[in-house]
Amino acid sequence: MAGYPPGSGYGYGAPPPAAYPVPPGYRSPFAALVPSAFPPGTDPSLMSCFQMADQDGSGFIDDMELQRALSSYNQTFSLRTVHLLMYLFTNTNTRKIGPKEFTSVFYSLQNWRGIFERYDSDRSGKIDAYELREALLSLGFSVSPIVLELLVSKYDKSSGIYKAVEYDNFIECCLSVKGLTEKFKEKDIAYSGSATFTYEAFMLTVLPFLIA
Amino acid sequence: MAGYPPGSGYGYGAPPPAAYPVPPGYRSPFAALVPSAFPPGTDPSLMSCFQMADQDGSGFIDDMELQRALSSYNQTFSLRTVHLLMYLFTNTNTRKIGPKEFTSVFYSLQNWRGIFERYDSDRSGKIDAYELREALLSLGFSVSPIVLELLVSKYDKSSGIYKAVEYDNFIECCLSVKGLTEKFKEKDIAYSGSATFTYEAFMLTVLPFLIA
Repeated sequence: MAGYPPGSGYGYGAPPPAAYPVPPGYRSPFAALVPSAFPPGTDPSLMSCFQMADQDGSGFIDDMELQRALSSYNQTFSLRTVHLLMYLFTNTNTRKIGPKEFTSVFYSLQNWRGIFERYDSDRSGKIDAYELREALLSLGFSVSPIVLELLVSKYDKSSGIYKAVEYDNFIECCLSVKGLTEKFKEKDIAYSGSATFTYEAFMLTVLPFLIA
Repeated sequence: MAGYPPGSGYGYGAPPPAAYPVPPGYRSPFAALVPSAFPPGTDPSLMSCFQMADQDGSGFIDDMELQRALSSYNQTFSLRTVHLLMYLFTNTNTRKIGPKEFTSVFYSLQNWRGIFERYDSDRSGKIDAYELREALLSLGFSVSPIVLELLVSKYDKSSGIYKAVEYDNFIECCLSVKGLTEKFKEKDIAYSGSATFTYEAFMLTVLPFLIA
């Protein structure tokens, strides 16, 4: 933590509303169980997209359906990334999302795509460590050089000499940093920069981020 | 934690020596940087196995070499599992192991294989939730029903109606539970059943367990 003022380590006070257009209540544990409604003012094309993806008209989209729906937006995502998305936007392991969560996922991905493209200034389809740091900062996450190095070494799947992170791995990186930071904050009630976990809480916090 | 006496949640006082034949000092952060020696009394066939795997005679085995070496023992492991193995047995991300770490890996896997076979009493190649609980207990880890359910849902890669965990996923499950429990214990200095992390420590603890 050398060089990091207490409490500043993960963007306390960073401006989240623009970065996370998240409808109120989306983290309810029942979010994925009760069919939700589209927020007022939702783009009609987004509604059609949801209805196309929801092939059995159940009001829910499962993991395979979400993977197909997202891929049709000129993006490819592993089922692993899709599971992590579903976990973080429903806070459950049910692997089903309704209209409300679909809308959140859609706008978050749109936002992250914009940030990725802004920092991928040479249009290489990759961002390097410095650009990743800037991208995470613009999302409200300030990570130390050591964490940054770990992230880049984790999410660089190329075998090039220069470390760089491609779009789908960038999304997985954002999801992990966002999700872990939120879980940490939930435990850091006093905003002290430290969080205490029982063994049970620690395992239940961390395991969902492992292979999904 | 309901129903779990304080401090008993992860096998405090469980008998580890037989379960983990770990040579002293294997967790040195330099373990993977300085070529190590085989512990006294190492099985000569294990030494030959190491030398066969170490094709360039560097004194180290890298991730691809370890994957090949372990597969020759009638086991298949994903590169992901191999990376997790290397991380946990060297405590570094260098992805190279020497003779000492190779020996630890070999004997741990042999031990885990034995435990898996003991609990896979019908020789189905899979163990169910109850058997997984017993297997983890015999390794010194007592997990709650909720954690157990999460583990089984994570590590069951089959699409069967009955949840069950195959051998390679069992190993990944053991590695994750063992690794996370050890990291937790390192922070739970007072053996209170609770551990406090700074944000930096939390991220550096958890991120290595994510996709490797």
